Amino acid sequence: MNAITPASAERLVRVPLGERAYDILIGPGLIAGAGREIAARLKGRKAAIITDENVAPLYLGALVASLEAADIQASSLVLPAGEKTKSFEHLITVCDAVLTARVERNDAVIALGGGVIGDLSGFAAGIVRRGVRFVQVPTSLLSQVDSSVGGKTGINTHHGKNLVGVFHQPDLVLADTDVLNTLSEREFRAGYAEVAKYGLIDKPDFFAWLEANWKDVFAGGAARIEAIAASCQAKSDVVVADERENGARALLNLGHTFGHALEAATAYDSRRLVHGEGVAIGMVLAHEFSARLNLASPDDAKRVETHLKAVGLPTRMGDIPGELPPAEVLMDAIAQDKKVKSGKLTFILTHGIGQSFVADDVPSSEVLSFLKEKHP
Amino acid sequence: MNAITPASAERLVRVPLGERAYDILIGPGLIAGAGREIAARLKGRKAAIITDENVAPLYLGALVASLEAADIQASSLVLPAGEKTKSFEHLITVCDAVLTARVERNDAVIALGGGVIGDLSGFAAGIVRRGVRFVQVPTSLLSQVDSSVGGKTGINTHHGKNLVGVFHQPDLVLADTDVLNTLSEREFRAGYAEVAKYGLIDKPDFFAWLEANWKDVFAGGAARIEAIAASCQAKSDVVVADERENGARALLNLGHTFGHALEAATAYDSRRLVHGEGVAIGMVLAHEFSARLNLASPDDAKRVETHLKAVGLPTRMGDIPGELPPAEVLMDAIAQDKKVKSGKLTFILTHGIGQSFVADDVPSSEVLSFLKEKHP
Repeated sequence: MNAITPASAERLVRVPLGERAYDILIGPGLIAGAGREIAARLKGRKAAIITDENVAPLYLGALVASLEAADIQASSLVLPAGEKTKSFEHLITVCDAVLTARVERNDAVIALGGGVIGDLSGFAAGIVRRGVRFVQVPTSLLSQVDSSVGGKTGINTHHGKNLVGVFHQPDLVLADTDVLNTLSEREFRAGYAEVAKYGLIDKPDFFAWLEANWKDVFAGGAARIEAIAASCQAKSDVVVADERENGARALLNLGHTFGHALEAATAYDSRRLVHGEGVAIGMVLAHEFSARLNLASPDDAKRVETHLKAVGLPTRMGDIPGELPPAEVLMDAIAQDKKVKSGKLTFILTHGIGQSFVADDVPSSEVLSFLKEKHP
Repeated sequence: MNAITPASAERLVRVPLGERAYDILIGPGLIAGAGREIAARLKGRKAAIITDENVAPLYLGALVASLEAADIQASSLVLPAGEKTKSFEHLITVCDAVLTARVERNDAVIALGGGVIGDLSGFAAGIVRRGVRFVQVPTSLLSQVDSSVGGKTGINTHHGKNLVGVFHQPDLVLADTDVLNTLSEREFRAGYAEVAKYGLIDKPDFFAWLEANWKDVFAGGAARIEAIAASCQAKSDVVVADERENGARALLNLGHTFGHALEAATAYDSRRLVHGEGVAIGMVLAHEFSARLNLASPDDAKRVETHLKAVGLPTRMGDIPGELPPAEVLMDAIAQDKKVKSGKLTFILTHGIGQSFVADDVPSSEVLSFLKEKHP
């Protein structure tokens, strides 16, 4: 695959994974240019687009037109929007659509949508013919900076979220920043939590830059593109160091252990809490918990909270509307999370802003008494 | 994982795939010794055994006892026997059983059975938690010499066989040769077709050895173990050269393009034709087709046919009981086979015994007129 020189407003992040290396393009107008970019990188001339009912009316027509102009034969499948679509049932539907479109190994599955569509389509791309090409066209900030990069795909089962899937790297990611203009403020903020996360993991300068420039990031334009590119670069660095999550990649779960427990405790009801909001509260909790264990200064936790609150994100369990189950129930959800190794709790803790680390022997009694203390 | 020195009657074939390297142990009594061998190689202490109704009454008890004696907590799932079990429906059942058993990344899924159980369980092992450990305990000659080695897993859909799956290498293969004593003559012969295939691909000396020693291989004992070990070694060599089937691995499909078409033409009715029998006829046809294209001597095709006929395998389309559809229908089945790249037919052809090669531009008109000529 040839690297393409991006147009002036565009940024390019190359994920250097050897023979699985790929480009992330970030900038305006990329859906309209998708056919050209894909045709330049893929041998095949067939594509199966997977999207959802919310996204299809906005962008499917433009994507199909762009592919056809580049001589790529496109089929499309429109699925219901929402987390419930990440199921075996819909996986079967997607595989069937991809096979019906006679997509072969050098042809592509294209995910046009947010994290749900990306995770589901990527899984199908990873298993149809034991792997066909895969292009991500993420349409939410969250998926542009997180799920579309790194190759994790999967579905949910009644045992939990993302418990079935494969690692299947995309061949190209097209993060069209124009689409972010149609997101609600709340959706944009939720995605922003993951942007801030990269600063908190190991990029203190980026976090400071966000503290100074977040209003420009929210307003759009160059600062937004810069923030997305920096996030993709940060994620790429972690993924390249640990593609299959044997160690350092766990850092990407900063704030997620608490966050997932809160999502479970609110029954994944997006009216009460969406993923990025859970991560925002979880990141504050992770910093506070680290301070409680004398690993970091309480001032750092305060600083994280101040920034996330400034952008309008929830930062406390009490910010979630409605009743939460007791601390013991949250603790159970944490223990059932998949980041448990031989019974011990694995947590991402921190020594301060941009100094996160993986701790794999956190005593559950400490977590429980901390949760009791923080419970509203 | 430590290499274990095999007991005297045992053979060990190491598949050197870097961090995915694994051992194949071949010999008597390996089911009784499974707990010890698995415990020596896996960090986890949990295992989910997947097997079928035919195999369970014979070997499940011994395998569970062996695991428990080695302190490995074993659960088991018994599925219906037969090709229909390689479906999405049963994949979901297997994933659920593995998750219910709380199998984590360092624990194992154990496939106890033939190719169907191995392909299905390996697929589940490859996708639950994006990959857990996998142990193959193949109970047919076919699975011992073919499907249990190499990491191809998958299920069938209404679009065709093995169209959905992953590459997921096992961590250990235990080929217990005692279990072969309970196979029918016909089943053993069908597996033997794949043994002979390795000689025909690129090991003319092995083919000559089989011509001289096949009666001992069928009788059991040292010659049988030797033939299985040589087959596993041959398959390992091909897999190591091309793990994800981008090139040379296609050689393993010698005889399979014609063979699959015949299986499809007989609606996968095992009373008429089983896979190994289709491969036997397919290998004779591949040699004859190569001779017709002036690539090989007709004497080689004659020699292949003579040997396969001697062991009792079918070698002609006319040997299949019942009517076959016309050559045009067989041709359609070949064209729909997945080994089609951008519309061109890929075939494994040969320059003679042990001199097979991948031809990716075989004109379909030649294939069709050959099929018409050979049609009974």
